[in-house]
Amino acid sequence: MKHLININDLTQENIYKIFDLASDIKNHKNYRNNLMGKSVANLFFENSTRTLISFELAAKKLGADVINVNLSKSSTKKGESLKDTILTLQAMGINAFIVRHSDNYICEKIKGWLNDDTSLINAGDGNNQHPTQALLDCFTILQHKNSIDDLKISIIGDIKHSRVANSLVDCLHILGNRNINLFGPSQLLPDNTDKANICHNIESALNKADVIVMLRIQKERMAKHNIAELDNYNDNFGLNREKLQMAKPDCIVMHPGPINREVELSSDLADNPPSVILEQVSNGVLIRQAVLSMLITR
Amino acid sequence: MKHLININDLTQENIYKIFDLASDIKNHKNYRNNLMGKSVANLFFENSTRTLISFELAAKKLGADVINVNLSKSSTKKGESLKDTILTLQAMGINAFIVRHSDNYICEKIKGWLNDDTSLINAGDGNNQHPTQALLDCFTILQHKNSIDDLKISIIGDIKHSRVANSLVDCLHILGNRNINLFGPSQLLPDNTDKANICHNIESALNKADVIVMLRIQKERMAKHNIAELDNYNDNFGLNREKLQMAKPDCIVMHPGPINREVELSSDLADNPPSVILEQVSNGVLIRQAVLSMLITR
Amino acid sequence: MKHLININDLTQENIYKIFDLASDIKNHKNYRNNLMGKSVANLFFENSTRTLISFELAAKKLGADVINVNLSKSSTKKGESLKDTILTLQAMGINAFIVRHSDNYICEKIKGWLNDDTSLINAGDGNNQHPTQALLDCFTILQHKNSIDDLKISIIGDIKHSRVANSLVDCLHILGNRNINLFGPSQLLPDNTDKANICHNIESALNKADVIVMLRIQKERMAKHNIAELDNYNDNFGLNREKLQMAKPDCIVMHPGPINREVELSSDLADNPPSVILEQVSNGVLIRQAVLSMLITR
Repeated sequence: MKHLININDLTQENIYKIFDLASDIKNHKNYRNNLMGKSVANLFFENSTRTLISFELAAKKLGADVINVNLSKSSTKKGESLKDTILTLQAMGINAFIVRHSDNYICEKIKGWLNDDTSLINAGDGNNQHPTQALLDCFTILQHKNSIDDLKISIIGDIKHSRVANSLVDCLHILGNRNINLFGPSQLLPDNTDKANICHNIESALNKADVIVMLRIQKERMAKHNIAELDNYNDNFGLNREKLQMAKPDCIVMHPGPINREVELSSDLADNPPSVILEQVSNGVLIRQAVLSMLITR
Repeated sequence: MKHLININDLTQENIYKIFDLASDIKNHKNYRNNLMGKSVANLFFENSTRTLISFELAAKKLGADVINVNLSKSSTKKGESLKDTILTLQAMGINAFIVRHSDNYICEKIKGWLNDDTSLINAGDGNNQHPTQALLDCFTILQHKNSIDDLKISIIGDIKHSRVANSLVDCLHILGNRNINLFGPSQLLPDNTDKANICHNIESALNKADVIVMLRIQKERMAKHNIAELDNYNDNFGLNREKLQMAKPDCIVMHPGPINREVELSSDLADNPPSVILEQVSNGVLIRQAVLSMLITR
Repeated sequence: MKHLININDLTQENIYKIFDLASDIKNHKNYRNNLMGKSVANLFFENSTRTLISFELAAKKLGADVINVNLSKSSTKKGESLKDTILTLQAMGINAFIVRHSDNYICEKIKGWLNDDTSLINAGDGNNQHPTQALLDCFTILQHKNSIDDLKISIIGDIKHSRVANSLVDCLHILGNRNINLFGPSQLLPDNTDKANICHNIESALNKADVIVMLRIQKERMAKHNIAELDNYNDNFGLNREKLQMAKPDCIVMHPGPINREVELSSDLADNPPSVILEQVSNGVLIRQAVLSMLITR
């Protein structure tokens, strides 16, 4: 492993190795000097305070020097200029780039510019992939369930435009799960669904579910589609404690954050069990520490 | 001590313990590893370069990982959203929040969201409290005077809207001083003055004073009041070397900064003894190191 | 050495001492604790992501605490306010200021405000000096050539307004080179040229050159001059592989970056030998580590 660009680049073995390292870091907390003398650059072309801080903390907790590159939108929108930014920072001795960008597959492009000593982590590209989110989601599931392959897992919301859903479906599939269920507004369901079942009503998605993953809806996109069934998103697609009765008694509820309270999720559920949303946040730092540690010290 | 929100939460003993630790840090400078592995987040909803940097340096000098959260004004103005920001950062492993905010009592609200392992420092809330400023002011006084309780201390300016004055009056009171004198434009004097004397002319404030604290006036607020006596603030309420003759010969002059030169203070006095303004700045870092160290490693 | 403000403050011996230290840092990488407990403040009044990050990385790699001061343009344009910023940060314990500013000689002014324990590095002032750039340029030349004094070195572009050219000419002169050649649009050549030859055509600049330094042109300034010979800058003053045939076979091509591709330099030359542009970037961090280390631990 040199880069983490697409969750599909990982084998089941790779993934469990990352989970083991994350558990070790959690239990021992003695990885302070792992990245001492190494430099990590955060290149966030889309604003994302929480993912940026999660990576920043992960790198600092391992002793790395962290540079948050202040990106003026104007000078970096063009591919050529991005290349010069990357080559310059690499020449300065950056050991790992963490990139968030609105363009799909931007990391595949960047990868071609890097030398053998530089790592690249995709922190979310367009509506394509967000691999560390999928890892932290599955790591969180495994803290509550004995195994992952026999669970009924339902993902609800705007599946079509969600890199979170994409990477999670792929990751669950790699880990052997064959009971992934997708539900949402019909216009926002994916075209290609060979790894998951499409549900046509919320009952079939929630019924006897072990894990429910609610996605953040983007109100601007909802407005653009302007369709009757979107008028009352919360009624049609939101989760609350009453609807949760359909799921298994020990079902857990997840959300990548930030939450639109009372839209995709009731505030009561967001803040109380069986939601594990803040555990996901905590695990995010551990997973990113594990990934940074494995990539940079390989 | 778990939080430092209001100076009135501290006893005289607490305060002298902080001063002792600040002196130790000044003399030995061997506290580099005190907060190694701990994380501190600066959440400044109001701009304040100097207070932010003072806390940032204090935390870094103790070895902490420091996150300066880049707050977009839009997403954090609502209380609910602030709660989610705090809970998320806490879940990421932040050990202490340093908060500056324009709302009075915001820290009392935030405190209710924190778990037992997370500390909170009020770096200034509205016109209510600024406890580390009061501590560094009293620590500075004690570097020049043998004791604090028998001094005549005068605070001059917009007392009514000043968290600096509020916390300082409270802190001096806790330390046993009963000779606190307030002077300023009549519209800008406090309503409640049980801990201090209101002076009706500058002579009674300055006469035989041991310590004079000049406050920064906010020109916008002055303009809003639009009253004759404010027309020439410097003449009526400003301090210069001539007026200083009324005070004791060994009187010291303080100011929380930044100074409006030739408004509340002459440039000559700002830059020369008996002003101790830059000592206040130096002591600010020491006091914040002491407070961070005591709260986080308690 | 306490400050690095103007390259002319250095002797040949000083310069080679900096180069030796930069080489040591490159080879051993064991300078991690050199600046532990020291604090460095970056004060960049002009935007320059690459120089800022180069200094930030250099300081962090030596273990220093780094503060990037977020400068609001409004409060710092006046000299008086700048003085208060500097004095305040110095009182907080900053050991070295790194300053970039659009005003010539601003560092000479700042130097007068500092106490004996505080260092100052000029990271570029107006069109006057950029001493660390000159050092990294000469250090890079010496990685490719046995000695510097007998080389034909040509600098091409807007010489008149270039702090890079100014400092480089001065540095080469100190190191004994007497074959410095300048070429560019006639309006953009310097008035005072006692240290260098003015070339009147590109042939005389390129012919048998050992080192060619292409400068970044500022399109806004070109537009302002609005003169026929500037209409096709690339044809008249740009370098490409064909024109490079005039130089010596082992000639190297340099550029301080960022490059205007296909304006002053063809993309092919920018990205391939004999250009050493990315080596300059790498050496920039080493030189800045060496300078910081020498100034702060003197």
